Amino acid sequence: MPKTTFYYFNAKALGEPARLLLAYGNEQFEDRRVTMEEWPAVKQSMPFGQMPVLEIDGKKYGQSMAIARYLGHKHGLAGDSLEEALEIDQNADLLTDLRNEAISAHYESDEELKAKKHKENLKKVYPESLKKLDEIIKKNNGHLAAGKLTWADFVFACSFDYLKTMLQMPDLEQQYPSFKQLIDSVYASPSVKVYSEKSPKSEFGY
Amino acid sequence: MPKTTFYYFNAKALGEPARLLLAYGNEQFEDRRVTMEEWPAVKQSMPFGQMPVLEIDGKKYGQSMAIARYLGHKHGLAGDSLEEALEIDQNADLLTDLRNEAISAHYESDEELKAKKHKENLKKVYPESLKKLDEIIKKNNGHLAAGKLTWADFVFACSFDYLKTMLQMPDLEQQYPSFKQLIDSVYASPSVKVYSEKSPKSEFGY
Repeated sequence: MPKTTFYYFNAKALGEPARLLLAYGNEQFEDRRVTMEEWPAVKQSMPFGQMPVLEIDGKKYGQSMAIARYLGHKHGLAGDSLEEALEIDQNADLLTDLRNEAISAHYESDEELKAKKHKENLKKVYPESLKKLDEIIKKNNGHLAAGKLTWADFVFACSFDYLKTMLQMPDLEQQYPSFKQLIDSVYASPSVKVYSEKSPKSEFGY
Repeated sequence: MPKTTFYYFNAKALGEPARLLLAYGNEQFEDRRVTMEEWPAVKQSMPFGQMPVLEIDGKKYGQSMAIARYLGHKHGLAGDSLEEALEIDQNADLLTDLRNEAISAHYESDEELKAKKHKENLKKVYPESLKKLDEIIKKNNGHLAAGKLTWADFVFACSFDYLKTMLQMPDLEQQYPSFKQLIDSVYASPSVKVYSEKSPKSEFGY
């Protein structure tokens, strides 16, 4: 059996989708949670100096979406045809685009500029993207694509707290009940439920 | 045979990888180049109000990277295993991250801020990413991943002029001969060569 290690901070954020996809696939893996103290030294050994990283038999792979897609294909969560896989990728990218806009505003160091960006996004970017996601989920039986559970649902559900923090929308799932329905469908999987209940609590709150 | 239409502006930028992947696969497709005058009306019919869009038998798909990956899988350019596909996705995302940093600076409307962002990127972001890409290409026999021609090479080669414009580095391939080698390897494919020689000239210069 290959040795698998997953490296990330003790946070859900961009790492939890891979952890829960590994749990869904009943894969044995070392859940390596790197502390902020360890990070400068660990960073040197990471392919692009970033995490999350999935290590399979000594080879390290980076990029959170690439990892989630890989695990999705491995565990039958990537559609039944090339066209379904494309639809999943497309809708996952819509989510990523939204998150990246929010991240870009959140990590702006100039406070005045940060407030300006966030205000612009609240007006022009977030409502349209959230409405689109809501429509998509309603059209896909409570899922992000292909009318069924896919790896993109794991990305949505497991990084939802991070998204809410970045968007500064703590009651997002109350505004969009379809989002709550999607999240519940991911955590309803027995092995996912077991893993998430026994896993360490995020230090960051998301 | 399915009817395939590819919608984009008369530019290479984010659209040309898909056009040349379609050409590589010898697919018949309508190369629909939307003018700026037509765009407001056409925009309404696009899944996320954006292009590029690939339409297959009446169903439209957006997101440039998702489309390129789909065509890569369809035409044998997506690796021979799930792990190779992961490596291709990972390295394509490294390129996308670099491009997105540059795009974010390029389209900043505040001129002062734009200059500041570009200067910061020139110091902190671009050199490291470009060095990493150079190392990767050298390690992969002149390709972006998996040691052979993949769809990620098409993304690199066909949007290279756009990348240079965003980075404001007109002599990028002189600085990195490995980039030139990769680009040449994509255009060396006979059907790609035929298509690119007869296709309309981009209105935007990239």
